[in-house]
Amino acid sequence: MKLKQLREEVIEANLEIVRRRLVLYTFGNASGIARDEGLVAIKPSGVPFADLRPEQIVLTDLDGKVVDSSLRPSSDLDTHLELYREFPGIGGVVHTHSTHATAFAQARREIPCCGTTQADYWYGPVPVTAPLTAEEIEEDYERNTGRAIVRRLAGMNPDDLPGVLVAGHGPFTWGASAAKAAFHAVVLEELATMAVLTLALNPAVEPLLQAEIDKHFLRKHGPSATYGQ
Amino acid sequence: MKLKQLREEVIEANLEIVRRRLVLYTFGNASGIARDEGLVAIKPSGVPFADLRPEQIVLTDLDGKVVDSSLRPSSDLDTHLELYREFPGIGGVVHTHSTHATAFAQARREIPCCGTTQADYWYGPVPVTAPLTAEEIEEDYERNTGRAIVRRLAGMNPDDLPGVLVAGHGPFTWGASAAKAAFHAVVLEELATMAVLTLALNPAVEPLLQAEIDKHFLRKHGPSATYGQ
Amino acid sequence: MKLKQLREEVIEANLEIVRRRLVLYTFGNASGIARDEGLVAIKPSGVPFADLRPEQIVLTDLDGKVVDSSLRPSSDLDTHLELYREFPGIGGVVHTHSTHATAFAQARREIPCCGTTQADYWYGPVPVTAPLTAEEIEEDYERNTGRAIVRRLAGMNPDDLPGVLVAGHGPFTWGASAAKAAFHAVVLEELATMAVLTLALNPAVEPLLQAEIDKHFLRKHGPSATYGQ
Amino acid sequence: MKLKQLREEVIEANLEIVRRRLVLYTFGNASGIARDEGLVAIKPSGVPFADLRPEQIVLTDLDGKVVDSSLRPSSDLDTHLELYREFPGIGGVVHTHSTHATAFAQARREIPCCGTTQADYWYGPVPVTAPLTAEEIEEDYERNTGRAIVRRLAGMNPDDLPGVLVAGHGPFTWGASAAKAAFHAVVLEELATMAVLTLALNPAVEPLLQAEIDKHFLRKHGPSATYGQ
Repeated sequence: MKLKQLREEVIEANLEIVRRRLVLYTFGNASGIARDEGLVAIKPSGVPFADLRPEQIVLTDLDGKVVDSSLRPSSDLDTHLELYREFPGIGGVVHTHSTHATAFAQARREIPCCGTTQADYWYGPVPVTAPLTAEEIEEDYERNTGRAIVRRLAGMNPDDLPGVLVAGHGPFTWGASAAKAAFHAVVLEELATMAVLTLALNPAVEPLLQAEIDKHFLRKHGPSATYGQ
Repeated sequence: MKLKQLREEVIEANLEIVRRRLVLYTFGNASGIARDEGLVAIKPSGVPFADLRPEQIVLTDLDGKVVDSSLRPSSDLDTHLELYREFPGIGGVVHTHSTHATAFAQARREIPCCGTTQADYWYGPVPVTAPLTAEEIEEDYERNTGRAIVRRLAGMNPDDLPGVLVAGHGPFTWGASAAKAAFHAVVLEELATMAVLTLALNPAVEPLLQAEIDKHFLRKHGPSATYGQ
Repeated sequence: MKLKQLREEVIEANLEIVRRRLVLYTFGNASGIARDEGLVAIKPSGVPFADLRPEQIVLTDLDGKVVDSSLRPSSDLDTHLELYREFPGIGGVVHTHSTHATAFAQARREIPCCGTTQADYWYGPVPVTAPLTAEEIEEDYERNTGRAIVRRLAGMNPDDLPGVLVAGHGPFTWGASAAKAAFHAVVLEELATMAVLTLALNPAVEPLLQAEIDKHFLRKHGPSATYGQ
Repeated sequence: MKLKQLREEVIEANLEIVRRRLVLYTFGNASGIARDEGLVAIKPSGVPFADLRPEQIVLTDLDGKVVDSSLRPSSDLDTHLELYREFPGIGGVVHTHSTHATAFAQARREIPCCGTTQADYWYGPVPVTAPLTAEEIEEDYERNTGRAIVRRLAGMNPDDLPGVLVAGHGPFTWGASAAKAAFHAVVLEELATMAVLTLALNPAVEPLLQAEIDKHFLRKHGPSATYGQ
């Protein structure tokens, strides 16, 4: 029953990134995890989003062994798995090639925190991973992509920084559930859109004061949050 | 009866900023005021726009005391209240994080008045507030945001300048009603979009002649207006 | 009967510029002319496009005297009339504040002819009018706007150049009918969109060879046209 | 029967480029080829996409002689034919004036391969053709456009590089079928959109390592492909 619900949540997260125009054709994927069962549910590779049915969502263990589905998992599975193993608090991962976030990834620039829209969800800039070496690309590429993300987050709390830009590739986001990971993917694309424009208007833009980042992030996150109902 | 109508107008203004794509998820809010009753009607915090029902719109007095609703008001309530107290002629306030207007706010640049589209509604540039100090952020942040707006408008008529950019945050607009405030939010986003492109094409763009600003603004506003039916 | 058809064509042209997203709220207007009757049919001022009914379309003579309608004509009527008087071959005029074309008008830059998309419809760059003087703005503003367009076209065939950018204002286009004028407004917005991007990628972009402008323009226009059925 | 299917595939490819917003009015065309019959099926010139019926799709031989249809073929037919003659492995060709790809063509800049989205489908940069001479434009223009494309691909495999930018004009793409050619046109517009933004953020952006281009291109193409089902 729980796995059925997980599969449905993963479908819904995949559909959300399509509805929000983050995905062209099949260029993206969402997954979720059932921590107690140690099972990850992920989009099958190359299947059109509109056609996804629960039984097509691929279930694997944390080593990537498929335990249920006749379809192959997303080619990015090993990146998702690395994040699930290293960030034990997360429940979902989303990868897209959304236009503006991917542009920052390709330009290898972090997204500076120059507005409260960003401070509401990222506790500072959105970082970029270091590029992989040729060796890391040739062997175990997808897992090494995950490792580059984990290295970039070293010393930081993944709850405070729910997504990064993989250099030359695109964004990966996460959250407490597949739905939250998709939400962060949507917000990240908007942050990137605003930041391209902001940097065009003011290449030397100042980041927000730390006091304002604190005010906004902590208004929405943590024990003293006051936002919502 | 009047408060019922106010709540419906406030819902409609909230829906208008969504329909016009100024709002991602719940990132925005509209309010209106019944001046005789001294009551403000505002969107509840974090509630999806599509679900808003009249009884969910929060009624508060001008000090922010909730007088009707079981829901919390928008976290930006105190900014709205400050504007209602200081600009006695206005009937509605809208806050969004619309993409291009927010980019100007983040870049901390005013929108120069270089076209008649702007002069039709703003009687000059769209100004940016001064940044808040760390102290103003830490204590009474939302009200201090309102004060920064009021300070920026000092000596100007809020009817001539129906919105500003809050530095590092985004646009606030107002008008004779919640509907007019929403209209100004939509127009401001378009002005900002045009201005980003204009400044890319001509970084040293000249503002309109004052004679043309007068012609357009006064064709639509004040005793000698001729526009419309 | 003919005037009924003209009014319907004018409504359709007004709707086309809305459908193609060239118009925010009521920021635009289309007109057509019945040359034999000497009557111009134009959108009424400030009326929402979606509500337009044939009897609301205002009929005026070439001096702007309203001959049928209880509504006021568009405030830009005198600009349209000047174009109908000076360009006897045209049958329709459209004015919009479409985003990218207006940005060029605000930046006071012509749109260089650097691609065949433009050469298919404009026989060279899209020009910008000279700015009006304060005197021209204060007295007879709308007609002087038309005069500035006519002066800018001096020595050119309006069929070869179906639209210009009014400095600090926005585009005016024309054509053999209201439908053609609307078509040119839509094409112009796309040309402007491409040109902003082109100039960002290559500020020193070369115009097309005259041979290629000839090839494309004359493939679609004039006695040796081969395009279409 | 086979030609009927070809015509339907060609209609579907023409509709796909419209649905994906690559085409304004009639500015684009898709074709397909039946290699055994030596027949090309192409959109008729200037016919609105929404109205296309199978019998209107024009069939020609590889020399451009119309063998079935009462309509004239697209004015770009001779460019399509040149590609079918010179690239014997392709089954479909698409030409559009999509906004961002056309901007690169007008700016006469190639699209550098700075992200995996591109490396998934183009095995390196998207090249630009050399400009045609006045002579090549005046005589046999459409065929010379095809020749310029073929020259630019000299020594390269058209399967590795399923589309180019024609200088001052716009993109041509191809593929194993009309559907694949349309798919490549859609992907190319997205690559161009990302690249405009990337170059704005980092004018000196580094291309991907060859190892990463290999990894992505070969994950989706050739004998060791692993993507999809």
